[in-house]
Amino acid sequence: MKFKSILAALIFSAGSFTASAQTDSVYIRKIFDEALVKGECYQNLHYLCKNIGQRLSGSANAHKAVEWTKKLMEDYGFDKVYLQEVSVPHWERGAKEQGYILAGKTKLPVALAALGMSVATPANGVTAEVIELHSLKQLDSLGEAGIKGKIVFFNRPFDERFIEQGTAYGTAGDQRNIGPGAASKYGAVAVIVRSLTSAQNDYPHTGATNYGKNKPIPAAALSTIAANQLSELIRNAKTPVKFFLKTNCRTLPDAVSYNVVGELTGTENAKQVITVGGHLDSWDLAEGAHDDGTGVMQSVEVVRVFKALGYRPKHTIRTVMFMNEENGGRGGAKYAELAAQNKEEHLAAIESDEGGFTPRGFSFDGVNGAFIKNINAAWKSLLEPYEADRLVEGGSGSDIGHLRGTMPSAVLIGFRPDSQRYFDIHHTPNDVFENVNKRELELGAGTMAALVYLIDQHGIKF
Amino acid sequence: MKFKSILAALIFSAGSFTASAQTDSVYIRKIFDEALVKGECYQNLHYLCKNIGQRLSGSANAHKAVEWTKKLMEDYGFDKVYLQEVSVPHWERGAKEQGYILAGKTKLPVALAALGMSVATPANGVTAEVIELHSLKQLDSLGEAGIKGKIVFFNRPFDERFIEQGTAYGTAGDQRNIGPGAASKYGAVAVIVRSLTSAQNDYPHTGATNYGKNKPIPAAALSTIAANQLSELIRNAKTPVKFFLKTNCRTLPDAVSYNVVGELTGTENAKQVITVGGHLDSWDLAEGAHDDGTGVMQSVEVVRVFKALGYRPKHTIRTVMFMNEENGGRGGAKYAELAAQNKEEHLAAIESDEGGFTPRGFSFDGVNGAFIKNINAAWKSLLEPYEADRLVEGGSGSDIGHLRGTMPSAVLIGFRPDSQRYFDIHHTPNDVFENVNKRELELGAGTMAALVYLIDQHGIKF
Repeated sequence: MKFKSILAALIFSAGSFTASAQTDSVYIRKIFDEALVKGECYQNLHYLCKNIGQRLSGSANAHKAVEWTKKLMEDYGFDKVYLQEVSVPHWERGAKEQGYILAGKTKLPVALAALGMSVATPANGVTAEVIELHSLKQLDSLGEAGIKGKIVFFNRPFDERFIEQGTAYGTAGDQRNIGPGAASKYGAVAVIVRSLTSAQNDYPHTGATNYGKNKPIPAAALSTIAANQLSELIRNAKTPVKFFLKTNCRTLPDAVSYNVVGELTGTENAKQVITVGGHLDSWDLAEGAHDDGTGVMQSVEVVRVFKALGYRPKHTIRTVMFMNEENGGRGGAKYAELAAQNKEEHLAAIESDEGGFTPRGFSFDGVNGAFIKNINAAWKSLLEPYEADRLVEGGSGSDIGHLRGTMPSAVLIGFRPDSQRYFDIHHTPNDVFENVNKRELELGAGTMAALVYLIDQHGIKF
Repeated sequence: MKFKSILAALIFSAGSFTASAQTDSVYIRKIFDEALVKGECYQNLHYLCKNIGQRLSGSANAHKAVEWTKKLMEDYGFDKVYLQEVSVPHWERGAKEQGYILAGKTKLPVALAALGMSVATPANGVTAEVIELHSLKQLDSLGEAGIKGKIVFFNRPFDERFIEQGTAYGTAGDQRNIGPGAASKYGAVAVIVRSLTSAQNDYPHTGATNYGKNKPIPAAALSTIAANQLSELIRNAKTPVKFFLKTNCRTLPDAVSYNVVGELTGTENAKQVITVGGHLDSWDLAEGAHDDGTGVMQSVEVVRVFKALGYRPKHTIRTVMFMNEENGGRGGAKYAELAAQNKEEHLAAIESDEGGFTPRGFSFDGVNGAFIKNINAAWKSLLEPYEADRLVEGGSGSDIGHLRGTMPSAVLIGFRPDSQRYFDIHHTPNDVFENVNKRELELGAGTMAALVYLIDQHGIKF
């Protein structure tokens, strides 16, 4: 009967659907039904956000998150659940930062947050003249004569012409990522950076900075409203505008932490792995809901859905919750190192770290045009009913990116939700559970499970 | 030089891009740059929501909205701006509704809102036994014996398996649209309806009900949390559960109102029209931000963008803000009537009334498979860079739908934003400006302008 109905479907279809595609189509529908009707990732995310909350690497909360997610996967009856020990940086914000603009007689307090890994100001804070720049190149042309003793204010906004907001973030990101180190080289006493967002609001966006080999100087992000105010005051000032900054952060000795791994063991090739993951650590300003509670809870959901459907994978399907994506990437590096040590073969790794928004598709890292053409020909129509069928060349994710070195044959894949809202809340006090939509989250989990299913069934050689 | 570079593009492209497509591609990029970098629809929406607010047909606010939007288009220098008079229903909610569940000794107040066009309860309210139903068919099987004297509680939830939330809304909608009239036929004294949403929260969702020829009885929507509570109390009750409802609404005599129309006059065929619109009226519980402030402000933005770019259309491009979509549809009917009277030819009409969310594409009403195939072949690749390239068969909109009768050759088109969040806030106290994302709104306006441009350049015969 089953064969007959598949045959009938073949005959009556337009001929573009193979029997295998027909089976896949039916199975993917089952995956989505489970994720949308009986989904558990939303309630799991609620627990992670509300009962644990922020979980910066090395913090007590990060440890709680490790313990709870391990238990979660054990309770779901995953075939194997284990931890991968990794030494992580341990940075603390300390007491809330203070900052104000000093322009003539105006003393204007502003919303700001120290950048992750920043050093603290002296106990009395630092006060200095502000110089507004829009690029790191300007540092070189101004040189020590123009920079020394000043607070550098990087204020290049997002370029709104980019459709993908991730690209706007990427092209503005140097100001935060390496701006403080670069300014330090020329004798700046501190750096303040316009928050990396196109939103106009009063939330500061934190995020890691990396001084490289330069002397660390205090660094903080201003809300976009504060950045606009400061820029306007500088533009209209008759005397130099100054800024007062006080940050209280510190870096403690490295701490012991863990990647949390759970798997369904492959029935045919247990040593061949398909990894799906996100990062368990988060910034300390909120609950790490979209960044990246959604990604880790979707990754758990992928395997939960397979278990609920009684699916026995050919290859090992592995949920990985990476530790320390935000300020070190040590968990991703450790995972790649252990994969090589254990002589595992990774068919593919999928990372969800762009928020739990409505799914658009996937991007495939470092593949060629033929791969994109062929994977679209094979699988696009299967994802189209779920409006998650954009299969494009592009980045994957910073955690799985470490596999490039140790597992060059692995296909590295980024889950791509819609990008428009992510940088409204990314790294802010506003990254809370209430800003996650249940349906969007569940559709994302279904989309990820569908791709894992297809890779498990057919491999991913295109 | 220009010709040469187009030629070069032709030679170096994969051959699928014609010279015309190359020109279109460049122009569409200009449209998006204008909408994203210098867009004004977000600030216009802010004014509409915050300085005017709710604007139910016949209300003083609806009149303010007519005056302000007319002035807005005049100030932008549209070639023509005018009003189309239309007589509209004038319903008022009156004082806030009250409702509580009476189960044994429990008296539980619940969040609810009268349905639009509902009649009021007697001044003391109505108290009666509740009967929970999941379909209108159940009314017929229970008959007068089972229904008479009771309050009918329709509690069929959204079917979560639908990917498009509009479909879930459509298939649950009979409970609100015609449920009260159908229950009245069997002697029900009132109807309470589960809010039409998949969200679990405490916002009641209003919306129009139509009694048809049945005797009007009071009708209200319960929040989904209240509906779940009521259902559980009924399930566990030892004695019949009762409900108290008090609504204070009334229907006044019809009022005079207007569609607001603005246009860029066509340089080649002024009598050939491309319409783009949304509805200006809104429900009274909030600001009508997504429903449909976003649609009308995007429709104004389409023409503003063309003016900013100095684009002179071949055909007349017309922004239409329809009045009375929510509880009568009289503005849409009047527009279609006048179009026929004036012997205009409508090439196409596009309606944006599914919220200002990230764009996905367009649906084309009543077209055949060949049309969809050909329009995709011609235009999909032009919209793909904006991730708004889903060109599918489907509904268009209830306002432009009236053109079907008077302008059968017009192609009726629905703008399709992502559907996942719309019914979280649709018709609720939560439909406020703060829930609109600037980028999503602007991308939608750009997408609509791009399609209008393509139709103006090439017609829409596929």
